[in-house]
Amino acid sequence: MKSTVAIYPGSFDPVTNGHLDLIARGARIFDRLVVAVLQNLDKAPLFSAAERAEMLREVTREWSNVEVDLFDGLLVDYVRRRNAHAILRGIRAISDYEYEFQMALMNRRLEPNVETVFMMPAEKYSYLSSRIVREVAQLGGSIEGLVPPLVVERLKSKVH
Amino acid sequence: MKSTVAIYPGSFDPVTNGHLDLIARGARIFDRLVVAVLQNLDKAPLFSAAERAEMLREVTREWSNVEVDLFDGLLVDYVRRRNAHAILRGIRAISDYEYEFQMALMNRRLEPNVETVFMMPAEKYSYLSSRIVREVAQLGGSIEGLVPPLVVERLKSKVH
Amino acid sequence: MKSTVAIYPGSFDPVTNGHLDLIARGARIFDRLVVAVLQNLDKAPLFSAAERAEMLREVTREWSNVEVDLFDGLLVDYVRRRNAHAILRGIRAISDYEYEFQMALMNRRLEPNVETVFMMPAEKYSYLSSRIVREVAQLGGSIEGLVPPLVVERLKSKVH
Amino acid sequence: MKSTVAIYPGSFDPVTNGHLDLIARGARIFDRLVVAVLQNLDKAPLFSAAERAEMLREVTREWSNVEVDLFDGLLVDYVRRRNAHAILRGIRAISDYEYEFQMALMNRRLEPNVETVFMMPAEKYSYLSSRIVREVAQLGGSIEGLVPPLVVERLKSKVH
Amino acid sequence: MKSTVAIYPGSFDPVTNGHLDLIARGARIFDRLVVAVLQNLDKAPLFSAAERAEMLREVTREWSNVEVDLFDGLLVDYVRRRNAHAILRGIRAISDYEYEFQMALMNRRLEPNVETVFMMPAEKYSYLSSRIVREVAQLGGSIEGLVPPLVVERLKSKVH
Amino acid sequence: MKSTVAIYPGSFDPVTNGHLDLIARGARIFDRLVVAVLQNLDKAPLFSAAERAEMLREVTREWSNVEVDLFDGLLVDYVRRRNAHAILRGIRAISDYEYEFQMALMNRRLEPNVETVFMMPAEKYSYLSSRIVREVAQLGGSIEGLVPPLVVERLKSKVH
Repeated sequence: MKSTVAIYPGSFDPVTNGHLDLIARGARIFDRLVVAVLQNLDKAPLFSAAERAEMLREVTREWSNVEVDLFDGLLVDYVRRRNAHAILRGIRAISDYEYEFQMALMNRRLEPNVETVFMMPAEKYSYLSSRIVREVAQLGGSIEGLVPPLVVERLKSKVH
Repeated sequence: MKSTVAIYPGSFDPVTNGHLDLIARGARIFDRLVVAVLQNLDKAPLFSAAERAEMLREVTREWSNVEVDLFDGLLVDYVRRRNAHAILRGIRAISDYEYEFQMALMNRRLEPNVETVFMMPAEKYSYLSSRIVREVAQLGGSIEGLVPPLVVERLKSKVH
Repeated sequence: MKSTVAIYPGSFDPVTNGHLDLIARGARIFDRLVVAVLQNLDKAPLFSAAERAEMLREVTREWSNVEVDLFDGLLVDYVRRRNAHAILRGIRAISDYEYEFQMALMNRRLEPNVETVFMMPAEKYSYLSSRIVREVAQLGGSIEGLVPPLVVERLKSKVH
Repeated sequence: MKSTVAIYPGSFDPVTNGHLDLIARGARIFDRLVVAVLQNLDKAPLFSAAERAEMLREVTREWSNVEVDLFDGLLVDYVRRRNAHAILRGIRAISDYEYEFQMALMNRRLEPNVETVFMMPAEKYSYLSSRIVREVAQLGGSIEGLVPPLVVERLKSKVH
Repeated sequence: MKSTVAIYPGSFDPVTNGHLDLIARGARIFDRLVVAVLQNLDKAPLFSAAERAEMLREVTREWSNVEVDLFDGLLVDYVRRRNAHAILRGIRAISDYEYEFQMALMNRRLEPNVETVFMMPAEKYSYLSSRIVREVAQLGGSIEGLVPPLVVERLKSKVH
Repeated sequence: MKSTVAIYPGSFDPVTNGHLDLIARGARIFDRLVVAVLQNLDKAPLFSAAERAEMLREVTREWSNVEVDLFDGLLVDYVRRRNAHAILRGIRAISDYEYEFQMALMNRRLEPNVETVFMMPAEKYSYLSSRIVREVAQLGGSIEGLVPPLVVERLKSKVH
């Protein structure tokens, strides 16, 4: 029997309940799921890569086959180094889908041995993104239920 | 280690090279992949369910973890009977995606323990569908390279 | 102050919880909401127009400003006869949206004094349609929670 | 200098002002534009192929480089017989676009020497289709301004 | 009879004829329509919030039930302060629609008593946006017919 | 016989094999094709306008009816100055299509005598863009087969 390893890459600035929902789904399908935090983002993140990874580790502790890691550079190079077989991506909206499709085709071209696999978060999280969570928090809106309780705390101290 | 079983359902009237491409990809990710041929279609198929399954068995012989089966009724009932964990679907176009999304959400509601997983066929098959293959064959166009050689033969004897 | 009357047209074969959700939202925005059941459908409906209207009357009894009516022919002619100012339509998916957009532009051309107004059902109903409900019921799946309890009963006696 | 011949295929049941708008645009770009009426449709047309072609000839008389013809079978076979270099298609909506994209890729595969070229009709015709015109006419709505005056007359005598 | 108040939020940098078209439509459906100018934008606006509001007041003078106001912070907080029942948004394109859909779901979550209502501008304004108007003006193109005459004047003095 | 001149505008930072594929297709349909390099981009380009034009000239040498030029300001002003009849644009994805549609309608409004004509690159280039090429190159990934060999060299010296 194979042991299938999947990489779930993202910036997770911060992790939302939509991300967690997808991690739970991926952990059921794959033998091992590596949540890979992209270190260097185009624009300054709200949380540092270390903070983002630490929050992820806290909130994914219940899954024994989930691991949190940091990466940089080309995603497929990281996937190869980890001997992974699949890249896991969540799709919610059409616009997601187009961008994801392009990335998946490019990644397939750079590394034909790795498949991109798409799963859907619960529909109640279909409008959730880290960006919208940051914006609501910065405008003083309530983000309870959108991110794990730990992240609610961290966001409050960041934006005030 | 888990043994993940995925169901790849469809009407396969007939199987195309796009279907085969997806089966190859699924066979690499899942421990076992069951290609499930829907028996009773809304309109009269070109090939009987038995013919469709037989062609699939011929062209998937090289994968030892791929099995071809027939099913009828509610897909999630069949998935449950097979103790499967995932439904595999290919997405090529936006219109696919919307319909697939709706079906996946409905199936999740009917059976929360089964995940729908999406993968992409090679982009050279992005315009391929069983319907377009049937239409081209019926109008006398060449379908070489669109379906496996065995299916080219069968289609020729069907439509002439 | 104006008294705004909106028409919510559809075939409602049968009414789903998604329709009900939209009726509740429309009843809050408009002074009067007329749920208009299209009598003659392209293909034979599962429920007769009288049955569809009767079920709608039962399940909308709680809203005093909601009325159920039957109509036939051109929608804008009916809207004019009712002295209504708006057509209410629910949008869930992109494919909905395109078709709705075309219909709204055509209706605007046929009757410039009537506006089409779009509202969104709750996201948990985003995958619900009368067609998918009929299909699941016919294949023996559970439709509890998708349609009002009254409709669950009626569907059971229809499809068995 | 080349002489570029383009084929504008369709069922034209009946020709609308949106089709005419596109013919006018194509006639300015190509040396010769052949409007090719598909004879055998999947379902019974409202107008016979001869009637559809005759109406097109009447309403395109002003363009000396536009010709109306009938065809059947595979489009690319017809394009080859006519020594044409391009297939002209109008795109209005996203759903159009996806279908057109698939057909264009299939046609390119069947005949790599022919290009599909897309142009947009005027935005006031973006919601127009032969089907919606037939539906409105059959329900007794006014179609003036949607189709040429000649077609208004013919539709009236057809549907009454 | 209820008195329905709707908020039409935006940056209006500057107001276009597409915005005006939607205001006219909203003023016919709602008892009161508040055009709410977002004060602080992500990037420096071409016109100050005061200038944007003043131009809007000038060009909406003909509607007695339309009011122009400034707001900042979370939209739903402003809506609550104004005791409004609906948020009015225009949709033109698919990409609009996706973003609008996400915002509407988030706003519904933050304030379940407020509905987002979508209406369509006239199709001749479907390609119009404040951004494209600014770009054309800055490149020296004519913007007559795209914005009200007052805004043509103000833009000319701004960009030269 | 007419002599149809088309303009293919873009930033080409740098030219990709997808651009080249479209140039080849356009050169077969139009009598003359002008590849027009936009000089001043919103953000600093990787290659200067002169470098971008020079690379394009190198890689389009085989087509005698293709010319490379620089332009600035409003595209339709340039098209008018060149006495061109058409603007050629490639469409790959839905998101492209929406933006292209808006630009085409705006350009048509600014200059009704010029048509925008859309063609599709080969599907194997559907995920290619200058941006993705720059990103992969900057992360050290291989770009062979995505851009002409000359551009591979230039990119290597730029990003290292």
